[in-house]
Amino acid sequence: MSGSLVIVGLGPGSPDLLTPAAARALQAATDLVGYRPYLERIPETHAGQRRHASDNRVEIERARHALALAAAGRKVAVVSGGDPGVFAMAAAVFEAMETGDAGWRDLDIHVEPGITAMLAAAAEAGAPLGADFCAISLSDNLKSWETIERRLRAAADGDFVIALYNPASSARPHQLGQAFDLLRAVKPPQTVVLFVRKAATPETRLIVTTLAEADPTLADMRTLVIIGATATRLIPREGRQPWVYTPRAEPGAVR
Amino acid sequence: MSGSLVIVGLGPGSPDLLTPAAARALQAATDLVGYRPYLERIPETHAGQRRHASDNRVEIERARHALALAAAGRKVAVVSGGDPGVFAMAAAVFEAMETGDAGWRDLDIHVEPGITAMLAAAAEAGAPLGADFCAISLSDNLKSWETIERRLRAAADGDFVIALYNPASSARPHQLGQAFDLLRAVKPPQTVVLFVRKAATPETRLIVTTLAEADPTLADMRTLVIIGATATRLIPREGRQPWVYTPRAEPGAVR
Repeated sequence: MSGSLVIVGLGPGSPDLLTPAAARALQAATDLVGYRPYLERIPETHAGQRRHASDNRVEIERARHALALAAAGRKVAVVSGGDPGVFAMAAAVFEAMETGDAGWRDLDIHVEPGITAMLAAAAEAGAPLGADFCAISLSDNLKSWETIERRLRAAADGDFVIALYNPASSARPHQLGQAFDLLRAVKPPQTVVLFVRKAATPETRLIVTTLAEADPTLADMRTLVIIGATATRLIPREGRQPWVYTPRAEPGAVR
Repeated sequence: MSGSLVIVGLGPGSPDLLTPAAARALQAATDLVGYRPYLERIPETHAGQRRHASDNRVEIERARHALALAAAGRKVAVVSGGDPGVFAMAAAVFEAMETGDAGWRDLDIHVEPGITAMLAAAAEAGAPLGADFCAISLSDNLKSWETIERRLRAAADGDFVIALYNPASSARPHQLGQAFDLLRAVKPPQTVVLFVRKAATPETRLIVTTLAEADPTLADMRTLVIIGATATRLIPREGRQPWVYTPRAEPGAVR
């Protein structure tokens, strides 16, 4: 079997944030497999390269198709927004492998990391993830809302900075408001909240607010929401958005 | 004031994982500021570029020096391993800004994201961060051990995958063992534990074990430790390490 499969992280969108290793993997592939809008970001490389575009929400079918192509000897790149290991295609490929053809386990498979959304979003605001943090997908397509609530509570108990992926979609407009309500019961009202839309693109938009005032309708599927820890702070600036950062040190820690 | 400051993420080390935006920022700088081993990774760019190397554990002094250089009109790049916003230099720069010269707030400052260690480490193993996860620095240089224990407990309560940064150093050889002991009291003994040393380099080393058997002496400052959630699974392979992944879906979730 001479085929191979690489799961490639495209980062936030700009070629400026695509790693050279990821760019080379895309160029070397005979077949690109992925969600249509991600494939459309990739410039044509060579005439023989085939593209297999699919809709969203069919990750497992897409992963099986990619594994079958690799097993047939193709050099396949599965493309993923951000980092493939963070709420993206890598877990889907391994799930498809585990439940699929036994021969797929012998394939030459590689995961090529990328800049995940929370890193790009944090960079727009300063350093809000500067201390311990967690990442939670707010989508209940694949897990129960009870699990999401349990994790939000645990994140508040641990005073983690919280990065919320998939905060809202047209099918799920109310969950971010529910999440804010849950957190308002356990975190201070002045807790910093950030809405970062399309981070690291020319259309990026950053909103800095507080948990008391956070308006869930400001989020959509292109938005990353960051909820600060107790220590997360603003640095006011004349005529510009404040910088936002979470100090590395606890108050009172010996330096 | 025509100076500027960019805080650049170098990623795990290989130029293959340095983003084009980060490479350009390093090239454009008149002054590079950073921890000596990170500066040594960067090839000479132009003759006029000055290098300001410092030791570790002097982040705030280094950040002040960089801000003062930018305020004096230099184009400064502060270099950081991994991503500057994750247990690295960005928070130190904003802390130095907040407590320093008021004029520093008007400087042109930019954070250039990078591949942080947990993404590179996860990619070596499969997709262990495939569901909700958290990142905790185990160093108690800047926070109390009680805070670290509180966060480990919260992470277990929420059944997050846990990425441990700075798991051990010669000055702190015992803390990872203490963290494992704490987690053994609340998580199943067969919980997957990964030790990933020097991820995304030619010398990378991956150890896949369980919480019951995890040997804390396997970690050093170049190691990232990942502790699975309940759902984190292995895919056995003939003659090779198993793949490790955390399914996106909860058992029983509607698909």
